[in-house]
Amino acid sequence: MNHVLLINCGDEKGLIAKISRTLFENNLNVMELKEHVDEASNHFYMRCEFKGQTDLSRMKDQLTSQLPREAKVTINPRKKKDIIVFATKEHHCLSDILIRNYFGELNAEIKCVISNHEDMRGLVEKFDIQYCYIGHENKTKEQFENEILAVAEKHDPDYMVLAKFMRILSPRFVSKFPSRIINIHHSFLPAFIGANPYKQAFERGIKIIGATAHFVTDNLDEGPIITQKTNQVDHSFSADDMKHSGREIERVALAEALQHAFEDRIFVTGNKTVIFG
Amino acid sequence: MNHVLLINCGDEKGLIAKISRTLFENNLNVMELKEHVDEASNHFYMRCEFKGQTDLSRMKDQLTSQLPREAKVTINPRKKKDIIVFATKEHHCLSDILIRNYFGELNAEIKCVISNHEDMRGLVEKFDIQYCYIGHENKTKEQFENEILAVAEKHDPDYMVLAKFMRILSPRFVSKFPSRIINIHHSFLPAFIGANPYKQAFERGIKIIGATAHFVTDNLDEGPIITQKTNQVDHSFSADDMKHSGREIERVALAEALQHAFEDRIFVTGNKTVIFG
Amino acid sequence: MNHVLLINCGDEKGLIAKISRTLFENNLNVMELKEHVDEASNHFYMRCEFKGQTDLSRMKDQLTSQLPREAKVTINPRKKKDIIVFATKEHHCLSDILIRNYFGELNAEIKCVISNHEDMRGLVEKFDIQYCYIGHENKTKEQFENEILAVAEKHDPDYMVLAKFMRILSPRFVSKFPSRIINIHHSFLPAFIGANPYKQAFERGIKIIGATAHFVTDNLDEGPIITQKTNQVDHSFSADDMKHSGREIERVALAEALQHAFEDRIFVTGNKTVIFG
Amino acid sequence: MNHVLLINCGDEKGLIAKISRTLFENNLNVMELKEHVDEASNHFYMRCEFKGQTDLSRMKDQLTSQLPREAKVTINPRKKKDIIVFATKEHHCLSDILIRNYFGELNAEIKCVISNHEDMRGLVEKFDIQYCYIGHENKTKEQFENEILAVAEKHDPDYMVLAKFMRILSPRFVSKFPSRIINIHHSFLPAFIGANPYKQAFERGIKIIGATAHFVTDNLDEGPIITQKTNQVDHSFSADDMKHSGREIERVALAEALQHAFEDRIFVTGNKTVIFG
Repeated sequence: MNHVLLINCGDEKGLIAKISRTLFENNLNVMELKEHVDEASNHFYMRCEFKGQTDLSRMKDQLTSQLPREAKVTINPRKKKDIIVFATKEHHCLSDILIRNYFGELNAEIKCVISNHEDMRGLVEKFDIQYCYIGHENKTKEQFENEILAVAEKHDPDYMVLAKFMRILSPRFVSKFPSRIINIHHSFLPAFIGANPYKQAFERGIKIIGATAHFVTDNLDEGPIITQKTNQVDHSFSADDMKHSGREIERVALAEALQHAFEDRIFVTGNKTVIFG
Repeated sequence: MNHVLLINCGDEKGLIAKISRTLFENNLNVMELKEHVDEASNHFYMRCEFKGQTDLSRMKDQLTSQLPREAKVTINPRKKKDIIVFATKEHHCLSDILIRNYFGELNAEIKCVISNHEDMRGLVEKFDIQYCYIGHENKTKEQFENEILAVAEKHDPDYMVLAKFMRILSPRFVSKFPSRIINIHHSFLPAFIGANPYKQAFERGIKIIGATAHFVTDNLDEGPIITQKTNQVDHSFSADDMKHSGREIERVALAEALQHAFEDRIFVTGNKTVIFG
Repeated sequence: MNHVLLINCGDEKGLIAKISRTLFENNLNVMELKEHVDEASNHFYMRCEFKGQTDLSRMKDQLTSQLPREAKVTINPRKKKDIIVFATKEHHCLSDILIRNYFGELNAEIKCVISNHEDMRGLVEKFDIQYCYIGHENKTKEQFENEILAVAEKHDPDYMVLAKFMRILSPRFVSKFPSRIINIHHSFLPAFIGANPYKQAFERGIKIIGATAHFVTDNLDEGPIITQKTNQVDHSFSADDMKHSGREIERVALAEALQHAFEDRIFVTGNKTVIFG
Repeated sequence: MNHVLLINCGDEKGLIAKISRTLFENNLNVMELKEHVDEASNHFYMRCEFKGQTDLSRMKDQLTSQLPREAKVTINPRKKKDIIVFATKEHHCLSDILIRNYFGELNAEIKCVISNHEDMRGLVEKFDIQYCYIGHENKTKEQFENEILAVAEKHDPDYMVLAKFMRILSPRFVSKFPSRIINIHHSFLPAFIGANPYKQAFERGIKIIGATAHFVTDNLDEGPIITQKTNQVDHSFSADDMKHSGREIERVALAEALQHAFEDRIFVTGNKTVIFG
């Protein structure tokens, strides 16, 4: 089985030499190595996919002992992530994830789909995925989220995917899953934050619409961006036409973001991402 | 010589029938006809390019008499527009315009280039275009703009093109040239309004940069959008790299916008454009 | 119910005047009118979507009597097309069509899926669509196609969609359904005609891959092109990576082509298409 | 001054460790390191940009002694390349190169422009670049090329750039400058090889046009591809409109290719390129 080594630390001379020598001495075969130094912060990021057998925990210690003190080193096996998918009433992102999952192309296993509506049950159950209806009406946000948490804790997912989930999660909820909740926003962030972005876009008379996949943080639509996609539109597009055109790129933006996440290709740094795609 | 007929009015049944019959009865040959009905406002827009000879002012009366009362009808000969180009220190949009002008590809004639710096004089004078330096220092905005107005009034341009002109024009100035000043803004509007959009984009960690050509109105960067272009970027782009990449699309967005404008293809309606490209 | 009026004929002065007057006199409301004159052949194409009630067959006669003698006039109600979908072993285009169909977004009704393999049965039957296995082994092409024809004739489809169907249809078969069979080819035609285009593309070291949806004619991969899409690739893509990336655009190219076809937006003229998108 | 280290050799375990240790021991600072292993051929490619002072020829020996026997190691200073630009009658690629050169953005110094026509003299001489007219009429190809060679040898350029040069160079000529002649072809290669690609594209009814920058080899339009760009077109584009639209992407494709070449970012391997962009 391949493994992925992720390192981030302050930059200094010789880091690649030290890391690659350690991998070599452990008799491992580097399949792919990518690194980036952020010059503004003088910070080093590296992702290395390797093949071969060694004592991983010992190698991790070897690496840590040579790297700057605050270095963060993780080694993950290349295996499927456990995920929970959230949806409301729109199907296009959810459908795409279900189909990719069904044909084994998602690098993930969907533990269940959570929705505050029943609309998607028929589709989800076709694929023998558990559909978990959690209504939001007549509940406080805390009650609503506690019910979600109960399901989430049972499945202990690596990631939660908001595939057009139309409820805003509270900071309390979000803080439990840092850099583990991925949302698709139907605009080219940071333009058109908030509700009804296609209506906003239509009224502004824009000529390109966008979609943005991002990690969810406390600030609505302000989390680290993973992928963005755009489509040309023109005056002949109604707000509804923009919405339809936008769905095509929402699907693609989210699919790419999930692929990056599930292959351990993303570093989150402040409000940004470093992605070794 | 071809002519362009532009009509906009409230929509009602039979408009195209009336207009096309009138053209036919005037023995004109329709080369290209495009129309659009904005359903939200129930408004009709039409651009028709025709060939042939007739009494244009009589035909205009014929059209007006059959159309709804508030109809706006204009007939322009397809000929080069007179323009003034404004620049500051960056050359990429200005160069592009100068080159297209030199090879007769611009559908316009540059009467002069106005700049608040001397940096571009060398380039502009190579092409035998008048370079008009109007410094902004130690002047009120009103004084500065009055000097510009004096030059503008002398040339009476159809359009003024802000090709990376880094001064904000006052509402007083702008109001004299409604829908006749075209600006290139170095972001994907409405994201990153104002100064230093690439720095803003860099700090937000976006994955796509944009450029927007628009008509200038009283509200900074809020005028009707003509064209937008985008480019993919990633974490390896510094704010400066984004700026360089952005220049390529600024040039293209502005060039397309100018082509639309100079061929009478744009209707401005409220804060939007209808473009028959 | 809206209707779509399609006209193509030799160009002459006053065509739009005549047609739009006829619509007006029949008290119909034009929702969308697009026309194109191909200058090389001096041929006129028009698509007009209208609302309102009239005697359609009488109006068709009125139009025909005023148009050049060889004019082709058709009036179709805007309703769902009946289609048969063909697949082999790959799911991505088929999945997309099934999902859009399930949610009523396809403007078509899938009468059945025909495949020369059993691989897609599970997926298709989830959506309660008839799966019709017709193996090609140990049969002549004529026998194989006769079995397909028997199914096709039963359903009498408006269109047949080859959603990664890996068998080449004979001229005899194709000639029965002129401009009614739509194929998705996994390359940027006319580059990489024939088998294994991603392998060809990989070996040529190209930097952009493509996908092409087209009508099927006697000549393999040479029929009129409807839509094309491209994606950037680079040296790090294996032939297999190109194939995976290509699937995303194959899906989009086919989906757009089907939308154009099912909304009666395509004229086929010689080996080209005029599309009023 | 920064330097660029380029290595290509058969792949084996520990290459990055050896190379990065050598750089570290020479007290050099790695600014950017990118590597690629081509799995089909089991070949290793690396580009490393570094800062710092050392005995470069000694370091090259140190590297060579540790690498597989057939390893190719080069170390170039990051400095401007000397180039000769070839043009015929079209200006758009040439203009772009001249402008970038004038503003110091090209990473190259144009030694002269060679053309078989006089059309571009006016433009070129505006920028104080030597214009070298070498007519092709009434000469054998050998005579024509010998005159070009005489000029080329005088300037000894790093690269020759065919910026819409409409003469085909002989294998004899090309073989003198392996991987040093860059051409822009006005189609999406390998589609539409040879003359009049836009006419070919128009007649085929394609929906996307392309442009391809590539190294020139013995086989016309068959050399290693560096960059490709595409633009959407539709039925309303005449062959001439396609040509105009194509010029915009030809310019961009060539500009990017030149940037890659002049920054030593390209490996040519067989008929392909590995580009560390």
